[in-house]
Amino acid sequence: MKIESGKGDIIMIRFNCDYSEGAHERILNKLMETNLEQTPGYGEDPYCEEAAAIIRELCQKEDAGVHFLVGGTQANATVIASALRPHQGVAGAVTAHINVHETGAVEATGHKVLSLPSADGKITASQVEELYLAHINDESFEHMVQPGMVYISNPTELGTIYTRAELEALYRVCRTWGLYLFVDGARLAYGLAAEGNDVDLKVLASNCDVFYIGGTKVGALFGEAVVITNEELKKDFRYHIKQRGGMLAKGRLLGIQFGELLRDGLYMELGRHGDRMADKIRKACRDKEIPFLVTNTTNQVFPIMPDALLEQWKDKYSYTNQGRVDETHTAIRLCTSWVTSEEHVDALVKDILNS
Amino acid sequence: MKIESGKGDIIMIRFNCDYSEGAHERILNKLMETNLEQTPGYGEDPYCEEAAAIIRELCQKEDAGVHFLVGGTQANATVIASALRPHQGVAGAVTAHINVHETGAVEATGHKVLSLPSADGKITASQVEELYLAHINDESFEHMVQPGMVYISNPTELGTIYTRAELEALYRVCRTWGLYLFVDGARLAYGLAAEGNDVDLKVLASNCDVFYIGGTKVGALFGEAVVITNEELKKDFRYHIKQRGGMLAKGRLLGIQFGELLRDGLYMELGRHGDRMADKIRKACRDKEIPFLVTNTTNQVFPIMPDALLEQWKDKYSYTNQGRVDETHTAIRLCTSWVTSEEHVDALVKDILNS
Amino acid sequence: MKIESGKGDIIMIRFNCDYSEGAHERILNKLMETNLEQTPGYGEDPYCEEAAAIIRELCQKEDAGVHFLVGGTQANATVIASALRPHQGVAGAVTAHINVHETGAVEATGHKVLSLPSADGKITASQVEELYLAHINDESFEHMVQPGMVYISNPTELGTIYTRAELEALYRVCRTWGLYLFVDGARLAYGLAAEGNDVDLKVLASNCDVFYIGGTKVGALFGEAVVITNEELKKDFRYHIKQRGGMLAKGRLLGIQFGELLRDGLYMELGRHGDRMADKIRKACRDKEIPFLVTNTTNQVFPIMPDALLEQWKDKYSYTNQGRVDETHTAIRLCTSWVTSEEHVDALVKDILNS
Amino acid sequence: MKIESGKGDIIMIRFNCDYSEGAHERILNKLMETNLEQTPGYGEDPYCEEAAAIIRELCQKEDAGVHFLVGGTQANATVIASALRPHQGVAGAVTAHINVHETGAVEATGHKVLSLPSADGKITASQVEELYLAHINDESFEHMVQPGMVYISNPTELGTIYTRAELEALYRVCRTWGLYLFVDGARLAYGLAAEGNDVDLKVLASNCDVFYIGGTKVGALFGEAVVITNEELKKDFRYHIKQRGGMLAKGRLLGIQFGELLRDGLYMELGRHGDRMADKIRKACRDKEIPFLVTNTTNQVFPIMPDALLEQWKDKYSYTNQGRVDETHTAIRLCTSWVTSEEHVDALVKDILNS
Repeated sequence: MKIESGKGDIIMIRFNCDYSEGAHERILNKLMETNLEQTPGYGEDPYCEEAAAIIRELCQKEDAGVHFLVGGTQANATVIASALRPHQGVAGAVTAHINVHETGAVEATGHKVLSLPSADGKITASQVEELYLAHINDESFEHMVQPGMVYISNPTELGTIYTRAELEALYRVCRTWGLYLFVDGARLAYGLAAEGNDVDLKVLASNCDVFYIGGTKVGALFGEAVVITNEELKKDFRYHIKQRGGMLAKGRLLGIQFGELLRDGLYMELGRHGDRMADKIRKACRDKEIPFLVTNTTNQVFPIMPDALLEQWKDKYSYTNQGRVDETHTAIRLCTSWVTSEEHVDALVKDILNS
Repeated sequence: MKIESGKGDIIMIRFNCDYSEGAHERILNKLMETNLEQTPGYGEDPYCEEAAAIIRELCQKEDAGVHFLVGGTQANATVIASALRPHQGVAGAVTAHINVHETGAVEATGHKVLSLPSADGKITASQVEELYLAHINDESFEHMVQPGMVYISNPTELGTIYTRAELEALYRVCRTWGLYLFVDGARLAYGLAAEGNDVDLKVLASNCDVFYIGGTKVGALFGEAVVITNEELKKDFRYHIKQRGGMLAKGRLLGIQFGELLRDGLYMELGRHGDRMADKIRKACRDKEIPFLVTNTTNQVFPIMPDALLEQWKDKYSYTNQGRVDETHTAIRLCTSWVTSEEHVDALVKDILNS
Repeated sequence: MKIESGKGDIIMIRFNCDYSEGAHERILNKLMETNLEQTPGYGEDPYCEEAAAIIRELCQKEDAGVHFLVGGTQANATVIASALRPHQGVAGAVTAHINVHETGAVEATGHKVLSLPSADGKITASQVEELYLAHINDESFEHMVQPGMVYISNPTELGTIYTRAELEALYRVCRTWGLYLFVDGARLAYGLAAEGNDVDLKVLASNCDVFYIGGTKVGALFGEAVVITNEELKKDFRYHIKQRGGMLAKGRLLGIQFGELLRDGLYMELGRHGDRMADKIRKACRDKEIPFLVTNTTNQVFPIMPDALLEQWKDKYSYTNQGRVDETHTAIRLCTSWVTSEEHVDALVKDILNS
Repeated sequence: MKIESGKGDIIMIRFNCDYSEGAHERILNKLMETNLEQTPGYGEDPYCEEAAAIIRELCQKEDAGVHFLVGGTQANATVIASALRPHQGVAGAVTAHINVHETGAVEATGHKVLSLPSADGKITASQVEELYLAHINDESFEHMVQPGMVYISNPTELGTIYTRAELEALYRVCRTWGLYLFVDGARLAYGLAAEGNDVDLKVLASNCDVFYIGGTKVGALFGEAVVITNEELKKDFRYHIKQRGGMLAKGRLLGIQFGELLRDGLYMELGRHGDRMADKIRKACRDKEIPFLVTNTTNQVFPIMPDALLEQWKDKYSYTNQGRVDETHTAIRLCTSWVTSEEHVDALVKDILNS
């Protein structure tokens, strides 16, 4: 049942995701260099402390809680379950990763995902306000899941990004109605570096209650740095990490990685590379008048391709199938990343232009 | 925030639900009569045994597991949680009670409700098959909730009913793909007695894995009789009842009630009364060319009423608000029941016709 | 595997539990009398309002939250799950009902029961304080379940009661360390009416955060009245009741029952009867120098009986087996109740004295 | 509240745990070497396939399910929750990691840990059989958590190991009563390499339903290889991994590590080193007639030390405090590992002998 394009074929060029390779060499070198040091476990080591300090500085939130978790599904479930009471749910776009691609990890902690319609992966402040008002004005409100948190991803699962104004509006509504705002930043660097973006870490940290800086998809072997700015959510968070299986024994592995990524701008640089590679693919599609399932400026490109062309590509490029659009066309996702080879992109661009 | 039409007003006539009164007098008399008998607790008494035997006979399933639970939300969560493995979800109409009006009781047991679009409260065999096939054909199937059970209500939350052919088709698809089929019969009598119905207890019992016969809304003080026909689901079910808080200490109260309701056709008779009262209201609406939100033949009527008329009714009749339809009209739900007074219905009919 | 003494034998006299019969006749009469009234559902009717007002008055807590649930396991799981955060557990005696006889209902909501040793069913303020201090002083505290609530039952599962001083000490420790104190009063009347008791509803309500007044075992058909005095625990409690399946559609059935029980002292009277009957049994045992597994003054008696005598009783009396004590003796539990017949007790007493 | 001996002090010699350092150099080299290869994600890459094949070969179980998870708490909760039905619990020693040091991760999935008394961290076949028989023979069995799985760790949390005969007896009892047997092998290498051990991977794989080979504490950066031999437990296991947050995006990191560890005996070699270092410490203690809290032969040593000596050590060695034994003595845990420096051990031995 698992059909992956070109699985196991060594000459296949992979554009199907942004986690096909290992880590940036600076990270591996630092792991080598520190390998035999003895440190306390579970994230209470100097490397985690240092990385947390860098993050607080970048966010200009000196009292932020900073915690390093291994992966995104784990980070999402841990943050959400720690914040909600049992009768509350988390609202998000119908396309949200937590609603679609985490095997019900949020529900497994007891909470409903309240899905909101979305064509581009984003939700609006008005949608959230309407959801909340509809709830409290319903005769049967106590028979319904109470919205307790709003989840957005930035960039979204469709590669779109929130503007600063959109983010501020969302957070304003959330604060008005007592909802937490949580931003999944699994691909954050590709958003921060995208054309048209006006959000930075400082803006982000001031406009939500908790978010994370994704490492897995941006140059780390693995790891997501959860940043908690709301005092209520900080309390006892480490218990939750441990309970959900996310407390890495050799926690310093995470501190070391985020230290390298964030110390001097490497993270942004890697994001820029991914975006620039995607821009090349986008431009080629536009030049060939290939339409997009969704328009965006980050590292995921969603062209609607002729099936005949995809047939030719099947042993050459891997991508994600996003569903058939009409009888002869299929939407696909092409992902670039921090390490995508420009040579590979140029090959793909050439194949697009010559198609 | 809880706004109920006419709450607490003693001369208000209540059409807002089918559980405004107590129980059929035969039930109360029997409770009186047996009150000081000593019986074992937790449903292991002769009254529960007898009621279970009657149900097995009516269903012509002599080895069915029969269990008496207090209410519907409890029955739904207990059945669903007992049947699914952690990574599985239950599919149902977007309007399903479990998806909307149980405060996330299913999610609280760890499972996602997979909602399917529905205009009339029903889902089809094709929808279920498509859902299942889409799941197993998705590249990321292991990252998604696996459908494990299908939930339907009959009658549905919108008062519609499944035909025998629809039920058989659903069950066929479920068996083909290894999904359990669960039928919520909270209002079962109103379905069985409805005009156009071709399903009986025997047909129902042969076309699903587990269902329940609703007592709360059809003459009992409370109670739902869960009938399990699939051998796999029978095992250890009493543990689940206890764990979910549904094992009534004085279990005989449930056995006594279902004994009275089902011994000699009282249950069907009560259903017929409710439906006949609703028929009168439906006819009046049709006579006045009042449109319906949904067409049906059971004890719930969904007329789209002029707001001006509703304004006049506000101290006279209680009903459920189903949402504004246009600037001057609102869909409402009028419920009749096993005990609805014909005098009350005639008053309402007169008011409709004179409007 | 289920072996119950004398199950199904109509001449068996049942001392095995305190829920073998129906309800006090005043309750049944009132149910009859109000049967065809129309009231709002889900506990928002005048009968529930009135019963809640009586309870607030008896407790001298005019702003207490009062909610009526169907049974004890449901009440326990609902209260505990509503109060704890995911990483917290509830501490209780190893013999606590929640630890032993609820099929893991608390764990099913995600929380560990932290069991404390107890010979008589009670726990002490010192035990609780030690547990809490051991937790916060452990190097690995974040790797352990954080105590968040203390659960006691009064009377306990072994029929013992807490003195006012013990209760005050427990609550003092709980407040000092930020733990909620929850009192399961499933058999409360038998405690309040017991010889040596110095606790009343007012004392109880002032010395815990939430407790319940048990109806099922003291004259009601079913029902437990949850009383919440701590403001934090009141918020949104009705959502939790609904989610855990405890919101009775015809909620007034609970209001009516508690109204009758508490309006004019019937509840205490019923408790006294049960205790007086048990006192007679206790006295007979003492007269025969039959030792007790545990000494108490409420409606449960735990004599250690010669197996030979139990063999003679097997078709005459039902009781609960508490386990073999030595090669020829077994501890049993004999339960009296609000409705235990004095004639039955006298027969038992005679058989004890003649043994 | 977190007091760790010598935290952050760079000249402190750490004997407090077996995860203070990074990974064996062969692992880091291989990560370097393969870093820029593109592979499919989520454990479906050739490195995971190869490592799984090696494990199947070592276990002589050619159809075993092999899955790589990041850490032990995650592995425990995922395995247990995937195997149990809601009303079931997992039995284990009172000292079991799942009962003490995982912040209630098992309970968070809805299941009770049924703790059995143990002085040395082990449980016996008889204890398990008694637990099961007590359950099924209890009158109230349906009101109690049903034992569904037995959890043991080998070596245990107290460094003791199971003999082949003990393991076989446990598995025999488990199969007789329909319980799954799960072996936590977080420190497996230290058990397999211990003096007096007669268990190997083949014996282990044939005497339980599921176990794991711990990497985190034996030379890997992180990782536990779960081996499932029981057909029932294999089905859909990857869904569970994903749901519990344990599916590493760059899954090959785990395959690479286990490949290196298991390809040619490195794993056993690392285990032997840890044990040999611990043997030296044990011998020194015995020479000084220092008693042990528990006797064992693996990489954890539990001497009962004079407080005066510990006071001298406080800036020199870190260890785990196991609790005060008498007024002047405290039990501690000294851990060695795959990478413990013999020089450090010799320093410690000297300090013991000179004390």
